[in-house]
Amino acid sequence: MPQDDPTLAVVIPAGGGGTRLWPRSRQATPKQFLDIVSERTMLQETADRVRALVPPERLFIITNARHVAPVREQLPDVPPENIVGEPQGRDSAPAIGLMAAVLETRLGPDAVMAVLPADHVIPHDEHFRDILRLAASVAQDGWLVTLGIPPTGPDTGFGYIQSGETIREEQGLAVRRVRQFKEKPKRDVAEQYLREGGYFWNAGMYIVTVGTLRALYRAHLPQMEAGFARIADALGTPQEEQTLRRVFPTLEKVSIDYGISEKAEKVAVVPADIGWNDVGSWARLAEVLAESGHEAENIVVGQHIGVDTQGALIYSPHRLIATIGLSDIIVIDTPDATLICPKSRSEDVKQVVEELKARGQHELL
Amino acid sequence: MPQDDPTLAVVIPAGGGGTRLWPRSRQATPKQFLDIVSERTMLQETADRVRALVPPERLFIITNARHVAPVREQLPDVPPENIVGEPQGRDSAPAIGLMAAVLETRLGPDAVMAVLPADHVIPHDEHFRDILRLAASVAQDGWLVTLGIPPTGPDTGFGYIQSGETIREEQGLAVRRVRQFKEKPKRDVAEQYLREGGYFWNAGMYIVTVGTLRALYRAHLPQMEAGFARIADALGTPQEEQTLRRVFPTLEKVSIDYGISEKAEKVAVVPADIGWNDVGSWARLAEVLAESGHEAENIVVGQHIGVDTQGALIYSPHRLIATIGLSDIIVIDTPDATLICPKSRSEDVKQVVEELKARGQHELL
Repeated sequence: MPQDDPTLAVVIPAGGGGTRLWPRSRQATPKQFLDIVSERTMLQETADRVRALVPPERLFIITNARHVAPVREQLPDVPPENIVGEPQGRDSAPAIGLMAAVLETRLGPDAVMAVLPADHVIPHDEHFRDILRLAASVAQDGWLVTLGIPPTGPDTGFGYIQSGETIREEQGLAVRRVRQFKEKPKRDVAEQYLREGGYFWNAGMYIVTVGTLRALYRAHLPQMEAGFARIADALGTPQEEQTLRRVFPTLEKVSIDYGISEKAEKVAVVPADIGWNDVGSWARLAEVLAESGHEAENIVVGQHIGVDTQGALIYSPHRLIATIGLSDIIVIDTPDATLICPKSRSEDVKQVVEELKARGQHELL
Repeated sequence: MPQDDPTLAVVIPAGGGGTRLWPRSRQATPKQFLDIVSERTMLQETADRVRALVPPERLFIITNARHVAPVREQLPDVPPENIVGEPQGRDSAPAIGLMAAVLETRLGPDAVMAVLPADHVIPHDEHFRDILRLAASVAQDGWLVTLGIPPTGPDTGFGYIQSGETIREEQGLAVRRVRQFKEKPKRDVAEQYLREGGYFWNAGMYIVTVGTLRALYRAHLPQMEAGFARIADALGTPQEEQTLRRVFPTLEKVSIDYGISEKAEKVAVVPADIGWNDVGSWARLAEVLAESGHEAENIVVGQHIGVDTQGALIYSPHRLIATIGLSDIIVIDTPDATLICPKSRSEDVKQVVEELKARGQHELL
């Protein structure tokens, strides 16, 4: 921890809808609530990762109202009042801003809040905690700090962060000013970023003091601020749920990147070489499992017979999957639906989900 | 029917082990007992196809002893004494020879028996019955008659029949003497056959009088003949099962093609352009289903969502199968096992079955 030992609090946004890992993830159980990467759920792993830094009393979770119960079940040591249920998803700016308002009341403006999404994988957790400590120290100087993932290729599935001059060097890491946030680029643009250098993937992690973030909301999203005040007054009272239901849906639907980060003056990025993976598709999950010890030619959870089968991801805990003459295939089997696609097409699961919606087969969503 | 109206009897060999359509077919339920082609099972369709020619009393079935019960269930109008259970498979010569001995006792040597396997598909059934009538008439002249399927390509999965001089012309069909039976050929040999002309696929169907066939067995398989006599004496007596169990396994394991047909003098072939398909693999079943009305791009039994999916065969009555970016894929889903392979590899299901045996997973066989 930095010398003046700030009060660190971790806010875990756990509101993802989780259609990208269909059919394993469903509306009722998005990926953050699943134990697909390890024996623990992704939410539990996210909490475990920071337990050496913060006690359960300073873990806060904001999730969809209908998922408050699974969060309580999976994190029984977190005080129930730290778990806030959004009546509906309004993107990240309302969710994180509301939690900042809550933390101001509870911990005061000097507390440092770290926003760490519930559905990411971070294998190098020791290094990750070191980076969080460094980021907290930078945040205390009034910076909105984000973590930048060094790109391993010209991926078009992430937003990018363009970094500028170095503002501090510590632990061999150059903390830099953020020059610009970039939307998910086209392939040639992403390739250009990599050639140019100084770009990072935006993993949506923020570290900032409560006071700094509150000031940013007041400056850039003043209408939202008024809503937060009404909700914060009601939290912990019998009016909490009713107030959330009435006020939250009126907040502007906007991301924190667009509504706050791009407009802030003092934004810094800490390079975070932490093996990060957002598990945003089955192909990405295959990468994670290959890295964490499943070194076999095929990654198999469950029963599989593969004849001339290479590079497959087979998930089938209930039934035997037999494949013949297939390369880089993904097979995800569940009691009521089975997905089969090449790794290169795993992002297109969303088209299957769209088709299910169009057919009205809500029981499979 | 020919003018002198022979007593026609149909013998249906139904002893196939049926691993080639795994996981749908299993040891307990080989393909002839499955309704995979239509609402009726393949055995029922085989019987239905000849009901216009023979009454149920002249339908005879020889099957594995453990499958006598399903045969009785599926063909309730066939007298139970017409259904014979082999204590073990000894290839086709013992099975068909035994039925000839049975028919001699029951119907006399002048009866014509048609041997029609239980696991073939014959869409042009009206034409097929005309051909059977013609074949029966040729059989009455002392010929062992087989049906020859005009090849649609140089298939290496079938035996071939080389035909010689025409011995009779009727209904626009040239009945020819068989010059030679050929084993399953290599590709280049099969191509040579097609260039040469006069070759047919051997579908294992025989039409012959009981007297002619009995004489052929006495001449070419005399030892087997002695066994038949002992079994025929016991059939219908309390000693039937015991005698079958003791004698049948001692009979030489040999095919009728090798043991009888290749050695007979008077063998004829009737060209049979009847849309025949042996459903010997999932890819062949896909051909059958495509021909019988499922004209859609993908052949689907059950529930399927296909994104960029063409030429697929999807069989999944219990669960949704979602495929993305796959061509000519076969997906066969059952409650405890799922097969996924390209059509070009569907013959290799046997490798999966071998692996299951090697693993001792008999519950999946």
